Amino acid sequence: MLDIKNSINSSAERISSHINKTPVLTSELINKIVPAKLYFKCENFQKMGAFKMRGATNAILQLSNEQKQKGIITHSSGNFAQAIALAAKSLNIKAYLVMPNNASEVKKRAVRNYGGEIIECIPTLEGRESTTKKILEEKGVTFIHSYNDINVIMGNATAGKELIEECPNLDCIIVPVGGGGLISGVALSASVFGNNCSVIGAEPHNVDDAYRSLLKGKIVPNKPTADTIADGLKTILCEVTFNIISKYVDEIIRVTEREIINAMQLIWERMKIIIEPSSAVTLAAVLKSKQKFENKKVGLLLSGGNVDLSHLPFTK
Amino acid sequence: MLDIKNSINSSAERISSHINKTPVLTSELINKIVPAKLYFKCENFQKMGAFKMRGATNAILQLSNEQKQKGIITHSSGNFAQAIALAAKSLNIKAYLVMPNNASEVKKRAVRNYGGEIIECIPTLEGRESTTKKILEEKGVTFIHSYNDINVIMGNATAGKELIEECPNLDCIIVPVGGGGLISGVALSASVFGNNCSVIGAEPHNVDDAYRSLLKGKIVPNKPTADTIADGLKTILCEVTFNIISKYVDEIIRVTEREIINAMQLIWERMKIIIEPSSAVTLAAVLKSKQKFENKKVGLLLSGGNVDLSHLPFTK
Repeated sequence: MLDIKNSINSSAERISSHINKTPVLTSELINKIVPAKLYFKCENFQKMGAFKMRGATNAILQLSNEQKQKGIITHSSGNFAQAIALAAKSLNIKAYLVMPNNASEVKKRAVRNYGGEIIECIPTLEGRESTTKKILEEKGVTFIHSYNDINVIMGNATAGKELIEECPNLDCIIVPVGGGGLISGVALSASVFGNNCSVIGAEPHNVDDAYRSLLKGKIVPNKPTADTIADGLKTILCEVTFNIISKYVDEIIRVTEREIINAMQLIWERMKIIIEPSSAVTLAAVLKSKQKFENKKVGLLLSGGNVDLSHLPFTK
Repeated sequence: MLDIKNSINSSAERISSHINKTPVLTSELINKIVPAKLYFKCENFQKMGAFKMRGATNAILQLSNEQKQKGIITHSSGNFAQAIALAAKSLNIKAYLVMPNNASEVKKRAVRNYGGEIIECIPTLEGRESTTKKILEEKGVTFIHSYNDINVIMGNATAGKELIEECPNLDCIIVPVGGGGLISGVALSASVFGNNCSVIGAEPHNVDDAYRSLLKGKIVPNKPTADTIADGLKTILCEVTFNIISKYVDEIIRVTEREIINAMQLIWERMKIIIEPSSAVTLAAVLKSKQKFENKKVGLLLSGGNVDLSHLPFTK
């Protein structure tokens, strides 16, 4: 039986010198709109610009010396590839990143800047898996999954721990749901550090596998063609995250693409911080369900701030 | 004879409950690029999104009761109109804002949201002044200039005081130069609170009246058609600011439009904060003159973060 509290505390200690303790910001104006007291945990200010740095670092630091020597591999089209590349670089470990050949130049450049070696694959699940398998066999490296890994989840949990330590009386925390790695970690943290603090997921309608999976009691994937501007949330739950979410998460609130963009614009304009669309689903969920949050103390997990500035969704 | 130290301290006390004490941020990556230790004073996180809130509040709070009752007026196409509108609103004072009829909808909407009454004028110096004069005569209100006013300058000076108090051993502070109200205040603060801390102006080449005025020893305006993406810096020095800058500012560094955009993009991408082009001239100046700043402790005054998100300059 896993000792959750001890495991999160150990993870926090393990990664503390490798990550930023990110600030918690507030906005008087947005508080008035709800009205409520909102506390934004700013993982957009995390190293490489997203919470993924926490889980990646926590997983790598627990490898054996032999594993560290041989190197690591993951597949990701986005932030996790950057996190693994940067964490590996700062720990002097070789990292291979399997990325779809249609991944944006911005993302590939970031991974290369962090010293990661990119191996391109065709942009399908099969392409990704067969390419990864090939490298695994050739190089004897260790595979680290971006969320189907309890060490990654425990690393992510440290963001929730920090938020609760800074704001001990939160009524609830809203967390974006993609593969479920962040919300699983935060929900575990809330269960052991929170003072009766519930955890609510925020998910785009377009890729609402978590919402539907909780209803059905089993993982129900999205259609392969499903798309959302919150591109970090297109991944689907795995067994580990589905089980944690089923037990520890109260509810999933779904939001539309327009609601995501409006919430993102509100945060950019009023808080003057850059967040990615995946972060904005949290505020979108609060604004959509104002009554539920009225006069509550609400934590919002802003997962990251990596956006392509030449492709922004704002219009007049 | 003005007691500078006393005057800035009084201003800081006077406005303290009406403004945000803004954070000072750093970026490991940008430090490595120079290399130097850069300390960014984030007035983009100030109320209404710019340092102007400091000067506007300081000036309004020193009006007589009769003046407060009758109301105030200013002309501005940008941040100062918003600052006066918001400061006046929170002090329950009527504010009239003379704005050019071609001012952007975003800016006019912001002023209206803060409760200011906009009076449109034709977009020339004469149009602005005659419209202002008419209201002054009709309503008996008090005119507050956005920088040709020592109370405004002393309010702005509090940003420099806060920065120096947080980073006591700065070698220098870089400040954007438009009308000179901010750099005048910061230079006065550096002269009394700094530990041998010099102040350097950063100015767009396209509107380099401060650079040329210091060379000539008198105010030399820009051509009426001169334009820059740093639209907050199109204003020209006045006697008050020219005299302070002549005495207290060491140097003006000029930067091109491309250098401003590149510096702005670097701050957005790496620091995940939204700054306006007028703020980016500071980092552009450092990046242009790396040798001068090598291994120094350098403060950068980020003046504000009000940008129109539907018109951004970033390309691939």
